[in-house]
Amino acid sequence: MRPRAETLPFVLALAVPAHAQSDAPSPPTTAEVLEASPASDWRPLDPGRTLYLELGAGRVVIELAPAFAPRHVANIQSLAKAGYFDGLAILRSQDNYVVQWGDPKAGEPEARSLGDAARTLPPEFDREAGAEAPFTPLPDGDVYAPEVGFVDGFPAARDAASGRVWLAHCYGMVGVGRDNTVDSGSGAELYVVTGHAPRHLDRNVTLVGRVVDGMERLSTLPRGGGPLGFYETAEERVPVERVRIAAEVPEAERTPLERLRTDTATFRALVRSRRVRQEEWFATSPGKVGLCNVPLPVRRVSPR
Amino acid sequence: MRPRAETLPFVLALAVPAHAQSDAPSPPTTAEVLEASPASDWRPLDPGRTLYLELGAGRVVIELAPAFAPRHVANIQSLAKAGYFDGLAILRSQDNYVVQWGDPKAGEPEARSLGDAARTLPPEFDREAGAEAPFTPLPDGDVYAPEVGFVDGFPAARDAASGRVWLAHCYGMVGVGRDNTVDSGSGAELYVVTGHAPRHLDRNVTLVGRVVDGMERLSTLPRGGGPLGFYETAEERVPVERVRIAAEVPEAERTPLERLRTDTATFRALVRSRRVRQEEWFATSPGKVGLCNVPLPVRRVSPR
Repeated sequence: MRPRAETLPFVLALAVPAHAQSDAPSPPTTAEVLEASPASDWRPLDPGRTLYLELGAGRVVIELAPAFAPRHVANIQSLAKAGYFDGLAILRSQDNYVVQWGDPKAGEPEARSLGDAARTLPPEFDREAGAEAPFTPLPDGDVYAPEVGFVDGFPAARDAASGRVWLAHCYGMVGVGRDNTVDSGSGAELYVVTGHAPRHLDRNVTLVGRVVDGMERLSTLPRGGGPLGFYETAEERVPVERVRIAAEVPEAERTPLERLRTDTATFRALVRSRRVRQEEWFATSPGKVGLCNVPLPVRRVSPR
Repeated sequence: MRPRAETLPFVLALAVPAHAQSDAPSPPTTAEVLEASPASDWRPLDPGRTLYLELGAGRVVIELAPAFAPRHVANIQSLAKAGYFDGLAILRSQDNYVVQWGDPKAGEPEARSLGDAARTLPPEFDREAGAEAPFTPLPDGDVYAPEVGFVDGFPAARDAASGRVWLAHCYGMVGVGRDNTVDSGSGAELYVVTGHAPRHLDRNVTLVGRVVDGMERLSTLPRGGGPLGFYETAEERVPVERVRIAAEVPEAERTPLERLRTDTATFRALVRSRRVRQEEWFATSPGKVGLCNVPLPVRRVSPR
């Protein structure tokens, strides 16, 4: 009888590292990197820029990125504080692409009022490089951008020639729906990537953050039967119970999470452990890692 | 009131192509490429190498790739013909990774017999390039392989230096679970990629085909709560009702599908339409396309 873990086609945390079987030094596995990480390499989510999307199935936690989309993030925060999203719905779930929520009546006379929030905003597709948090580059290139890496926990790309930096459409990233004109979005309609990274959307959409917990509550939603995965009837739509800023939620009701900082030696070691796989299961180590294949570790902590 | 399609964050088929608004000639959109495709650029699925995975939610259609994994495909065909998979279960659903099915008792004394089928097989991770169907290369490079493209409808990679070609782990690809030793797989346990392409598994696993219809019946399955997404109780597992070769199913009960051939001018035009986006919605055309971002069109046809 072979143990269950050995029948897995790929094993992350359970496999015996190859270097445990020899005297030769070799780099640690991802699991070993994380086990050895000092507490200072992690940081709690900032409740002021953490969004809770509450569904019947539970909570989805989104970390916002005001350094990249300050005006859109501020507008989303205003909308959330005013209760704009409460009682709206997930309108769309397209396989290997996105889920999207907003007002089913948007654009119609019965549409919900956005109150004091902006109805449209200028695009925040990219920004000047340099003033943002440190950029931790990856060494293996990218199909879509001259350079890719991580900024403050978010996958990003930059172009030295133009001096611009922008967020990248990896799994779980959150973006702002818009019409054909680039300044037609407001943050009242948002989507989350639930499939293979649609990188052709980079710099076409204002990305505002990423899902850091509860992603499976979005990714498992039934796919819509209409074009582009829209649900065809009101009954199929998934109610959005509430959207709140974590800072507005009593501390005891918050989800206590912290995430690995990406400007740390631990993160750089994690990237190495994904490029050169030490787990015994691997017959061929990839030797490379793509931007959207680098895990962004998030862990639960005991509330203080 | 704005029409619904205009509120989409990205529009594939519905947007007005930019070139419709000027006299300048420009390449067609993806939708226009497909509309203009001649019938000869499509081919029906070969029932002899099409697998039907029947779940309570309906059918999942898998096209097998004997040109890349002849021994594993033959073993899977033998197992399916013998009814080996019928009544087994989906054991695992890991978010942004894979679903996997097989015998819950595998490795235990009560495990189901594989009958005349092979219990283990030598790996078929790659093969000599040249004798397979035409390789249609992509022009924009790849993080993981020297060259990528399509062979007979499957995403693939090749290395001119070593003269090897192999299938690539894009969304929907089907692979063979194995233990730590490379020759420990048989095809009795299979998985499907349900998230961002885990390309680090390339040449570590024998890939045997891809899902061409019904993918949402796998991708929306509840994620398992155990390590690596394994379901923790028998009740959580999803029953596999039957797995059959399409050729063994009465013709009237088959799913009549055809897919775009990837060795055609239509497919090359489709690739161009993904690199240079003509849809009015795009503010910035990507100018590039990644291997796993090229759609592989499949359509239903009227049975003859």
